[in-house]
Amino acid sequence: MTGHHDLVLERTLDAPIDLVWTAYTDPDHIKQWFAPRPYQITECELDLRPGGIFRIRMTGPDGFDTGHGVPGCVLEVVENRKLTWTSALGPGYRPNESGEGCESFPFTALVTFADAGGGKTAYRAVAMHKDAADRDRHEQMGFHDGWGTVADQLADYAKTIGADA
Amino acid sequence: MTGHHDLVLERTLDAPIDLVWTAYTDPDHIKQWFAPRPYQITECELDLRPGGIFRIRMTGPDGFDTGHGVPGCVLEVVENRKLTWTSALGPGYRPNESGEGCESFPFTALVTFADAGGGKTAYRAVAMHKDAADRDRHEQMGFHDGWGTVADQLADYAKTIGADA
Repeated sequence: MTGHHDLVLERTLDAPIDLVWTAYTDPDHIKQWFAPRPYQITECELDLRPGGIFRIRMTGPDGFDTGHGVPGCVLEVVENRKLTWTSALGPGYRPNESGEGCESFPFTALVTFADAGGGKTAYRAVAMHKDAADRDRHEQMGFHDGWGTVADQLADYAKTIGADA
Repeated sequence: MTGHHDLVLERTLDAPIDLVWTAYTDPDHIKQWFAPRPYQITECELDLRPGGIFRIRMTGPDGFDTGHGVPGCVLEVVENRKLTWTSALGPGYRPNESGEGCESFPFTALVTFADAGGGKTAYRAVAMHKDAADRDRHEQMGFHDGWGTVADQLADYAKTIGADA
């Protein structure tokens, strides 16, 4: 279910669903692909259960640095199927103070995975906002380019986990 | 776990835990006790699962009326033990627009129940806020009187369910 305050990114990733899930849910893996290069994730905390923390620190060119960031909250975890988290709440479901950039408005990310056959994964990420203004702001920040690049990096990285195994 | 941005109400209710839980989780029962009289709940929607809606309409003296209200979101449901919901999100975890009165700031309610022996229930309600300003505002709206009165009404009402059974 999506609404008109959502932004949606869909991709078929050339990597099997279990590796995509692993890449998406382990903090050390997340650091390798979650920021569109040349941006990078320098810190990541993820407690993979409802109420658990999800926090990243992103750095980039020209001194870009989100600092320790506003910790978000995991809401739903269905292995190999679905991961939902929100920036509207922090760990333990406490309402969040707002931060900078992508953390200046609350959004909920609903990410789903499905087996697309042939070792590929249907990937869908929905960013839900409270109103059109926040959706537009997120879009103008480069949602489609950013999340699209990151989806490509996710597929490329997930395959390397497979090669190591 | 509570922090210094929380408001806490604890009571031992003179009603058994299963009846307290039933009174707390059925929309028709909720209407009977959830507003401190002479205020009353005229509408209640509760979908008792993570991501489900929790919405009330409260009316009272001098034309007080919350209208259809801002729908909140259920986060945790552990039968006879715990119910958590938040006004920071709506159903399906979408970030909420803010409303009026108690809905003008986001808070998360974490309500727990424990068997206190002798047919009584240890009841604890924690309202978590993003900062001290929201906590203070909630307190000044009469949190302790309001939630205390409602706890007494809950115990009185839960006993009547038992009498019917």
